[in-house]
Amino acid sequence: MMRTFDLLPPSVALAKMHAALDAAQLGPQVERVNTAAARGRILAVDIVSSIPLPEFRRSTVDGYAVRAGSTPGVLRVIGEVRMGEITHLRVKFGDAALIHTGGNVPEGADAVVMIEQIKFLDTSGDHASGKVQTQTQITSGDNTIQPGEDVKAGEVVIRAGTRLREQEIGGLLSFGMTEVGVVRKPRVALIASGDEVVPPGAPIRLGQVRNINTPMLAALIERNGGEVIDFGILPDLRDAFDSAAARAMREADMVIFMAGTSMSERDFTPDVVNGMGKPGILVHGIAFRPGKPTLFAVCDGKPVYGLPGNPVSAFVTAELFVTPTLLRMQGDILSSVRTVSATLSQDVKSPRDLEHWFPVKLVPASAGAAKGVTALPTAEPVTTKSNLIFGLVRADGLVCAPIGVDRLTAGTQVEVRLMV
Amino acid sequence: MMRTFDLLPPSVALAKMHAALDAAQLGPQVERVNTAAARGRILAVDIVSSIPLPEFRRSTVDGYAVRAGSTPGVLRVIGEVRMGEITHLRVKFGDAALIHTGGNVPEGADAVVMIEQIKFLDTSGDHASGKVQTQTQITSGDNTIQPGEDVKAGEVVIRAGTRLREQEIGGLLSFGMTEVGVVRKPRVALIASGDEVVPPGAPIRLGQVRNINTPMLAALIERNGGEVIDFGILPDLRDAFDSAAARAMREADMVIFMAGTSMSERDFTPDVVNGMGKPGILVHGIAFRPGKPTLFAVCDGKPVYGLPGNPVSAFVTAELFVTPTLLRMQGDILSSVRTVSATLSQDVKSPRDLEHWFPVKLVPASAGAAKGVTALPTAEPVTTKSNLIFGLVRADGLVCAPIGVDRLTAGTQVEVRLMV
Repeated sequence: MMRTFDLLPPSVALAKMHAALDAAQLGPQVERVNTAAARGRILAVDIVSSIPLPEFRRSTVDGYAVRAGSTPGVLRVIGEVRMGEITHLRVKFGDAALIHTGGNVPEGADAVVMIEQIKFLDTSGDHASGKVQTQTQITSGDNTIQPGEDVKAGEVVIRAGTRLREQEIGGLLSFGMTEVGVVRKPRVALIASGDEVVPPGAPIRLGQVRNINTPMLAALIERNGGEVIDFGILPDLRDAFDSAAARAMREADMVIFMAGTSMSERDFTPDVVNGMGKPGILVHGIAFRPGKPTLFAVCDGKPVYGLPGNPVSAFVTAELFVTPTLLRMQGDILSSVRTVSATLSQDVKSPRDLEHWFPVKLVPASAGAAKGVTALPTAEPVTTKSNLIFGLVRADGLVCAPIGVDRLTAGTQVEVRLMV
Repeated sequence: MMRTFDLLPPSVALAKMHAALDAAQLGPQVERVNTAAARGRILAVDIVSSIPLPEFRRSTVDGYAVRAGSTPGVLRVIGEVRMGEITHLRVKFGDAALIHTGGNVPEGADAVVMIEQIKFLDTSGDHASGKVQTQTQITSGDNTIQPGEDVKAGEVVIRAGTRLREQEIGGLLSFGMTEVGVVRKPRVALIASGDEVVPPGAPIRLGQVRNINTPMLAALIERNGGEVIDFGILPDLRDAFDSAAARAMREADMVIFMAGTSMSERDFTPDVVNGMGKPGILVHGIAFRPGKPTLFAVCDGKPVYGLPGNPVSAFVTAELFVTPTLLRMQGDILSSVRTVSATLSQDVKSPRDLEHWFPVKLVPASAGAAKGVTALPTAEPVTTKSNLIFGLVRADGLVCAPIGVDRLTAGTQVEVRLMV
């Protein structure tokens, strides 16, 4: 029987698993992908700039390239800097060359006057010749950017472990890197089980339950950069578990059993996991609600989980314990949990011997808050004892009552871990 | 010439566009997709529960179903509630039926004793017969859930406009809804242009620039639920613009011209846009940095943008002005901007007549913060005048200096709009 005092605190349990994974030293694998399609992928190597950026001196505005010393005053327009090439124009004192944003600042010029500060003295409409006037006195360097001012050649511009956003895609492509080395998505075997469990689309009898855990956890795993291998629903037969376990160890980088870890006779997941590789089960039972019977193992360098079968526990344990391991396997150095501070709306009782995570709905602070005080939103507990998934559908995030706390009182400031 | 006093404040400009879109009343279109693959999609219709959940009285724990009145005491085990069916067992005073989490609580029983609170009096190992003892006095209803307690039949369980998360996928599938009606992804035409602009993978001469805007904005649009039609890079020829515009109006729900909106002779985007439909250009020039020459139009009910060509301006204007319109077109009622409060690390000068958004890097608050005071992270401005994309690569978010402000001083508390 699982006794409360046998249970490990969640953070200790997870640290134990991560230490075993570190010891096994199976690093992430690398694959090359199309940069334009790499949003959300984790960069596998440092990106070093091979060239200075910009490569030539450029204007940062539309206007006229000049010598700063000849402003304010009337200037003679000597021509136009064409986009897409290094200009052959030479600017002397009193000269001005029409230039567009990003254009090459000609030799002799040391600044650019913005077009808004220019008065055209000719009425020809041709801005590339004739005379212009500016009343602004500008300073050498104004509205120009020097070669290498943004990025020096040899500089690390994006670090390995960065999750690529739109701007990193832009940065890579600005070097012409149309392919990029990213961490291969960890393959995660999702193994559901239970004689009463049927696929979501199948006809159902009263008493049966639909397998919503596989699609729900699949979406969570994909959001966190993994790739799912769906093992379907196993019957409560030892043979079925053994052969699924063997296949999962061959094909997957991480294995998740959903259900089968608690105390019933049919719960033979622990026994199966211990046959999958060394060191085997590290943690069975964590001081955690919802999800006490959770099982953590490392088998031949691969993380193996036994998660509770009820959907709320399955989702919350996956979010809190699978997500960090998945990110860690990818060498993700930057992703972090999103939390917001909020004020708890009502007392919440909590089991003193468990770390208790409960769902809350966030209600924005009312407009009537006192002046100068940043009012926090309110976190309203979503009361549900059902362990049906609609408790989480109604919730925006999760709040933690730590071990040793038997009540969070109304008005307490809590950190709400957002569910994306 | 674009004069500062002609420029609309950004919020006014965007409101003008949204009002014109509302007037045109082109609502979102609906398509049916596989629920399991619907993460991130916007629900098109309210989801109403056709059944109560749970459908039958269930146990919320592993244990024994009993009459609460017969605890504490020795109980006679009358059998086991099988998973996946409605049990025929009947529990009388002094009886106990072995039951698993989610199992049907038998008639006659009104509560479930957790297995942790059970002592087995037989040594047979068969927990479905013989006698058990509990020292706990439990209350009627304990560890059970009534039909409809989680969701009543006819209740709206997920509202139209919700962006589907893992738990909504689970909720839909728990009703057996393997398909779901979601908003069809708006199709967005991305039209780059410029004689100096070459595709990212092409050979490049000094003076040319790579088109990073299309892939960068494509990733932004996909993140916000849109689908991209890539029009490639147009030459600076009026004919090319006219035929691209005509095709975009046939094929797309939103049109974005990148570059060609400022004051050069080759900037004929405004003229082209005005030929695309009514009412045409609503805003040309916003009091905004970076991105003053931005153009907003509505043509025959479709939003049309002219964004600046430099990558930083293109990205920031897209994030601030395209994103909200894209979400609005999908009827997204819940997505919101992510901001964190931070302390500005140094003075930032700002043009008083423009709303000025500048990139910042967030540095977590040091551990040495005063006790009891929630220390804010520091927002360090990423100084860049280059308008090359690496300014945004180094940044975590954007900070706004509003119109009328000419300096944000070091130590000011600012809201940082995170770039995902």
